[in-house]
Amino acid sequence: MAVAQSDIADHKSQLVRDLQSILPAESVLHRTEDLAPFECDGLSAYRQLPMIVVLPDTIDQVQAIMRLCSTAGVPVVARGAGTGLSGGALPLDNGVLLSLARFNRILDIDADNRCARLQPGVRNLAISEAAAAYGLYYAPDPSSQIACSIGGNVAENSGGVHCLKYGLTVHNLLELKVVTVDGNLLTIGNRALDAPGYDLLALMTGSEGMLGVIVEVTVKLLPSPESARVILAAFDDVERAGEAVAAIIGAGIIPAGLEMMDGPAIRAVEDFVHAGYPTDAAAILLCEVDGTEAEVAEHIDAVTAVVEREGATDVRVSRDDAERALFWSGRKAAFPAMGRIAPDYYCMDGTIPRRHLARVLKGIYALSEEYGQGVANVFHAGDGNLHPLILYDANNPGELERTEAYGGKILELCLEVGGTITGEHGVGVEKIGHMCLQFNDAERDQFHAIKAAFDPHGLLNPGKAVPTLNRCAEFGAMHVHNGELPHPELERL
Amino acid sequence: MAVAQSDIADHKSQLVRDLQSILPAESVLHRTEDLAPFECDGLSAYRQLPMIVVLPDTIDQVQAIMRLCSTAGVPVVARGAGTGLSGGALPLDNGVLLSLARFNRILDIDADNRCARLQPGVRNLAISEAAAAYGLYYAPDPSSQIACSIGGNVAENSGGVHCLKYGLTVHNLLELKVVTVDGNLLTIGNRALDAPGYDLLALMTGSEGMLGVIVEVTVKLLPSPESARVILAAFDDVERAGEAVAAIIGAGIIPAGLEMMDGPAIRAVEDFVHAGYPTDAAAILLCEVDGTEAEVAEHIDAVTAVVEREGATDVRVSRDDAERALFWSGRKAAFPAMGRIAPDYYCMDGTIPRRHLARVLKGIYALSEEYGQGVANVFHAGDGNLHPLILYDANNPGELERTEAYGGKILELCLEVGGTITGEHGVGVEKIGHMCLQFNDAERDQFHAIKAAFDPHGLLNPGKAVPTLNRCAEFGAMHVHNGELPHPELERL
Repeated sequence: MAVAQSDIADHKSQLVRDLQSILPAESVLHRTEDLAPFECDGLSAYRQLPMIVVLPDTIDQVQAIMRLCSTAGVPVVARGAGTGLSGGALPLDNGVLLSLARFNRILDIDADNRCARLQPGVRNLAISEAAAAYGLYYAPDPSSQIACSIGGNVAENSGGVHCLKYGLTVHNLLELKVVTVDGNLLTIGNRALDAPGYDLLALMTGSEGMLGVIVEVTVKLLPSPESARVILAAFDDVERAGEAVAAIIGAGIIPAGLEMMDGPAIRAVEDFVHAGYPTDAAAILLCEVDGTEAEVAEHIDAVTAVVEREGATDVRVSRDDAERALFWSGRKAAFPAMGRIAPDYYCMDGTIPRRHLARVLKGIYALSEEYGQGVANVFHAGDGNLHPLILYDANNPGELERTEAYGGKILELCLEVGGTITGEHGVGVEKIGHMCLQFNDAERDQFHAIKAAFDPHGLLNPGKAVPTLNRCAEFGAMHVHNGELPHPELERL
Repeated sequence: MAVAQSDIADHKSQLVRDLQSILPAESVLHRTEDLAPFECDGLSAYRQLPMIVVLPDTIDQVQAIMRLCSTAGVPVVARGAGTGLSGGALPLDNGVLLSLARFNRILDIDADNRCARLQPGVRNLAISEAAAAYGLYYAPDPSSQIACSIGGNVAENSGGVHCLKYGLTVHNLLELKVVTVDGNLLTIGNRALDAPGYDLLALMTGSEGMLGVIVEVTVKLLPSPESARVILAAFDDVERAGEAVAAIIGAGIIPAGLEMMDGPAIRAVEDFVHAGYPTDAAAILLCEVDGTEAEVAEHIDAVTAVVEREGATDVRVSRDDAERALFWSGRKAAFPAMGRIAPDYYCMDGTIPRRHLARVLKGIYALSEEYGQGVANVFHAGDGNLHPLILYDANNPGELERTEAYGGKILELCLEVGGTITGEHGVGVEKIGHMCLQFNDAERDQFHAIKAAFDPHGLLNPGKAVPTLNRCAEFGAMHVHNGELPHPELERL
């Protein structure tokens, strides 16, 4: 075994030397202490030191790195800001971690054609900050928008509070430049509305680093709305709040955002940021409308009428931008606020057809009792994207495992009502088992064929997003061991 | 040769018998007189009788047909309503034409979740007609919406007048059921906003029958706007009209539709439908805004101010729905109206970044003089999607060839300003050569790899949409023969 270890060390040394012929020495990290900051992304329950980290700053360098790794058969994991929540940027101990952190320049803002050309490491919020000078902004706004990068947003097809009206990342892209596994540079999409050929732009978006390395992104910009106001509506019953969501959408209004928080979330948040939320409510809705002054006034009246008819116990409308920011402050602080009520939390991400909101929430509460783990719900109600936050204490033996099992059941609930196992966080390593439930063999085979069309030797981010046949066999065995499908929970509802 | 002919006849007879074991005899057409109606789609300059036409009416039958053809190595061309304008449904003399005409049922309208589940042969307009009972409609509205089918819309990623605000077909889809070349049934996409795994939904959309046979489509429905009005603005200069388009968009307004017609188009149309267009204008814009009453009123004022500032010589606003329909009647009749000024016309379809509108129009006029073929322009100005209608007489020797050469030059103009060779009509057989100019070898290789991932033996609609290496070599040779890139036309502007 000592021989094998020294073989590995030789292999690594050779690779470091080869990479140093492409990049300056300080851009090739290989000592354990230098590698540590890259051992996980936002899903910190999973950690792994990479063999080597590279920090290129030109497209030519990325192409050369990919050519080298392809020839040497070394797997590569691309990484943006590392804020992802499904472990999509988890390194491999035998692989190169390719950080795009130095690709942080805004290359061009074209106000006439309402678009911005960006390096992939540009922070999401920095786009809107730069576009503001032209009265424009970039719509998708993940909670992590201060830190997360546009390249990572593309890789995960990120959403945000405003994607109900303005769509996910995929709906706000025009063009990508992508380096393939063997170092070719592809231009995908076009500044025009549509491009001929197969739609590789959408295919690449959300592909979690499995198909290529994104080295340039052109996004659509939108005109900043003239006005925006938020309605805060409280309910003494979660189910009623869920029905109000359906009623708002059913009234023909498309709010800019329509968020819901349940009682445990409200109380944790209020204690933390003092947003003025009614702490005795079972649920609140935050409904933002934007547009011209007149349009906003009309929609505020319409939404107010709907939530009152649906039994809201308290309805407030933001009077100015300061109050609007205050109303949102609680929602935005919801994740960190969980620290007030539990040492750890696990943020789930599943999506369901809107009309099943009340039913699935009931199921989540029933499972909470069954597993003995608390839960708080904060979510994009308008598009049915749930974020149950399961509360646990990692220091208590067995709690993380119980939390993961509970989380898995929540995903299965989503599937059973025709939903999906992810809304905007991606599959990564976290939900790869549940991909076996969402897709049948023919569908997974098709995914593998697509993967092979881009990366025949499986060197790009292997082990993520799309499970192998073996993986699904193992998951099935584990699953049958843990409990049987379909769930009794749903049948009781 | 007689032997070979009889071999072919035997092969056909055997295939007919095999297909008759799957379908009732009247659903397998094989006599020349029965095949004739299928010899072309909307691009009638290209015609070819298929070997056999099949008319299945269940998904099981489509699966069985695909299994049979796959095993026998027989190519298959799927066809919707046959209204396509790029020859995407042109049959093969050695192939089966699979008509989806009998898949014409609306399976479900789910008003709560604002979606409709449809068989692929459902007509585009029939969706909105059925959804109207719920105050909903389906947004993409190709000119052929009375006749074209939703399956064909998906295959071509069709647009329409309202795609500026509401997007192309791909932006209005939730889920597809697709039969693969070897007869598997895949469910692609999801009723939720996003689905995990690679985005096969967008990949399949616009893939022109090359990747699978669409057998079910779930579309998004939108609430019918409370109000809609149209502004008609006339200009005495095409360039000014183009600048007004940029100014409207630049003012932060996203009209529901923003169309432009030039002088020759205006006069042909007015002579035909008497829409009241100013026949002395060099160009008119039709700008529709929709939304709530107040929003529409605000936007009408804003657009009026912009077009007046940009030098409009005549500005009219529709006073009621009847006048709105009148304003649109001319635009909608533009294609048939061409019959008033020329025996034949060839409708081109290219897209350019909006700000190059004036420049490219000048290039189109210069080429018109060079080739000695008249041209009228009718187009989706808001999203830069041009539809130059080249006028010709097929009975004059050489005119069709000259028209095609002129059309090719227009596509090259689009490419040179960063546009694309198609906006919404697809590539089909028509523009396959120009795909060699739009994409480089690595990009076309990637397309072929995707194709192979779905259809390794190339049996689905071969010869369309993505050119082979040989095809590009031939096109390059032809191209150099006809004239050199880059064009002197653009340099003169």
